Amino acid sequence: MKIELILIASEILEGKITDLNGHWLAHFLNLKGLSIEQVTVVRDHLPTLLSVTNLALQRSDVVITSGGIGPTADDLTKFVYRDLFNLALENSPQAYKIAEKNYQRFDKIFEAKFNNYHFIPRGVTPLNNPKGLAPGLSYFLANENKYLFSLPGVPYEFQSMFTEEVFPLIEELEHKSEILREHFNVRTKLIPEEKIFGEICPNLWQELESFGQVSSLPQVMGIDIGVSLEAHHQEDLDKKKNELLKLFSTSSLTPNIWHFGHESIEEVIVSTLSKKKQTLSGAESCTGGLCSNRITDVSGSSTVFLGSIISYSNQVKIDQLHVSPESLEKFGAVSEEVAIEMAKNARKLLNSDFAYSLTGIAGPSGGSIEKPVGTVWIGISDKRCSWAKKFQFKGDRKQLKLRFSQMCFYLLLDEILSSS
Amino acid sequence: MKIELILIASEILEGKITDLNGHWLAHFLNLKGLSIEQVTVVRDHLPTLLSVTNLALQRSDVVITSGGIGPTADDLTKFVYRDLFNLALENSPQAYKIAEKNYQRFDKIFEAKFNNYHFIPRGVTPLNNPKGLAPGLSYFLANENKYLFSLPGVPYEFQSMFTEEVFPLIEELEHKSEILREHFNVRTKLIPEEKIFGEICPNLWQELESFGQVSSLPQVMGIDIGVSLEAHHQEDLDKKKNELLKLFSTSSLTPNIWHFGHESIEEVIVSTLSKKKQTLSGAESCTGGLCSNRITDVSGSSTVFLGSIISYSNQVKIDQLHVSPESLEKFGAVSEEVAIEMAKNARKLLNSDFAYSLTGIAGPSGGSIEKPVGTVWIGISDKRCSWAKKFQFKGDRKQLKLRFSQMCFYLLLDEILSSS
Repeated sequence: MKIELILIASEILEGKITDLNGHWLAHFLNLKGLSIEQVTVVRDHLPTLLSVTNLALQRSDVVITSGGIGPTADDLTKFVYRDLFNLALENSPQAYKIAEKNYQRFDKIFEAKFNNYHFIPRGVTPLNNPKGLAPGLSYFLANENKYLFSLPGVPYEFQSMFTEEVFPLIEELEHKSEILREHFNVRTKLIPEEKIFGEICPNLWQELESFGQVSSLPQVMGIDIGVSLEAHHQEDLDKKKNELLKLFSTSSLTPNIWHFGHESIEEVIVSTLSKKKQTLSGAESCTGGLCSNRITDVSGSSTVFLGSIISYSNQVKIDQLHVSPESLEKFGAVSEEVAIEMAKNARKLLNSDFAYSLTGIAGPSGGSIEKPVGTVWIGISDKRCSWAKKFQFKGDRKQLKLRFSQMCFYLLLDEILSSS
Repeated sequence: MKIELILIASEILEGKITDLNGHWLAHFLNLKGLSIEQVTVVRDHLPTLLSVTNLALQRSDVVITSGGIGPTADDLTKFVYRDLFNLALENSPQAYKIAEKNYQRFDKIFEAKFNNYHFIPRGVTPLNNPKGLAPGLSYFLANENKYLFSLPGVPYEFQSMFTEEVFPLIEELEHKSEILREHFNVRTKLIPEEKIFGEICPNLWQELESFGQVSSLPQVMGIDIGVSLEAHHQEDLDKKKNELLKLFSTSSLTPNIWHFGHESIEEVIVSTLSKKKQTLSGAESCTGGLCSNRITDVSGSSTVFLGSIISYSNQVKIDQLHVSPESLEKFGAVSEEVAIEMAKNARKLLNSDFAYSLTGIAGPSGGSIEKPVGTVWIGISDKRCSWAKKFQFKGDRKQLKLRFSQMCFYLLLDEILSSS
């Protein structure tokens, strides 16, 4: 089944927002063994919408649009149905009911004069909007066995309407496939793509292709190597997975593999600590809370993460983290000594098993010849010892913060795994 | 000039990564008075690439592809040029030189046997990759006065190659327009779109349309209202802007407008504090560092932001923030009393002019009937007083963290602006 997505959003093409619906839908469908064939982002411009929707309906079985179903004058989606299928707009009691109920949910009264939610093309079915106000639209092209769906642009509403209203219809349309699918994923760190496939494992790509379609995906300072597995029986799938695990575990890549699966490094850190019943705290300067924010994005992190001292100013490093003023004076805030004191003191003050620290220069200002923008000292402390390592990265302020935090998590995971 | 973007990235369609290049390019072009007409996301599949590129070249003057120029077997872009324009692949000394120089920059030696960076279609010009290894591709269709460019998928490389190599060629191609353009933007908070245009200011949309194209863009708990202004002279543009400012400043929307312009709320907070020479600190529980991370994303935040205590566990609230164990015992961590103590003590301990605090339940677990998931107490403290307000939001863990932080920033900005 071919599924295609059209994002109606001038604001994406003007750089004001990034698309979230395409990413969410791709991920959702992938977990169901389906995928998106093509995504097109277009302006709120009726002639363009008509041509793009028409082309998409020729190529695909299910076409989903996102955006343009709101109450304002730049919301054009319903006119696409009107012009493409020659359907007059008319009052739909069903759409009226949905809008009325949704307004009630927000303790408001639906007043038809302020919007046209209930005025939709004849023959088009309105879809409930479980989290928002505007009804979605659904049209079945019976002759061609195809669907056109129109959903809201707001991600929260898009997701709930797709999950609850649209996906059941797609599942019905689909001839249930008997093929089992799984995406085998290996997460590596700190080796560039062409070094992996060119130097370290020159035959790897070819070997992997005998298992399924291979992909290589650059991440933050790491490469994900993926293989799309298919089989008719679960035992065949398991056999392939075990063979792949063996292949990777005996390869020259082993020291750089930090995970088999799709989990993020913060998820792996939280689950590993959770299994060991150990705790974590932090002390951040240049990353300003990015590390603790990433860790607390993980559900269940509260069982292992105690807290962090974000010491952006030197005085806070002294007062809250008990970094010695002499170290700051003698070596500077971005130094091995201060990074070690930060990690060690965070661990002791917050009483955790492990602690990390970061002190560096995220720029764009604040760099010097000895300590240019991109310099960072990362400290790690546990009961055995406390140490720090220096790194030098490139990028703008946000990129540097992200790289600093990623490197910190690589070091931290190693430390956690190597401790008894 | 029509500019179109094709993202070659199966990994986007499979939901593994989100696109960053489209967003960046749209934003970059917008600042130059240009924009993207259409974005298409396609798979690494040669027949699809050929058909999509061919269609785009029919519609647009400049077609830019992103991705698929790396060294691995799923990198197909050069074959698009070969097949579309019937150009044989051949050794390009120019491409060889670029690859060689880029390897040197990373202290590595370019070995042609490990990749094919130097092997490109005849007549296609290689583009330097200022931040990465793989050369880009550029082809000028002289008869039609059109360009096809192929850039890397890695955002960092895409951006630098576009800025340094591609954009000067686009500028050359463009007949310099004499029209001055500016995007007037009003950032509002806490009123839904249809309430603004349906109830509060029912004539606003029409009034704004007399100035230029109007857009309404939902943000996190707020709406951006935009008007695209055009004029032949700067004074005409300024006149329009002043009229718009007056229109909004005397409208019923005024109490909900927090900014004229495109800056984020954290940027406005940092610049306002900076002008007042005042400082800020924080105390976060449920948001886990998201607030301090957002603030420290702003360049120059180090002059106003001192630090924050991320007190995820109650013990850290007691030990580091000096929250009284009695308050925690009597009212619970998610309470007015604890939020006030957190903000007040953060301000005193870190010695700042303002402090914020957040304590709530981001879920998915930890909720109760009295304090369901989505409950948050936000505290604000300055020299005049310390107080806290309770809010109740909906969403998943990350959405709730974002909404909590956004509400905190709305309250904080009000407090900063109302203080002398």
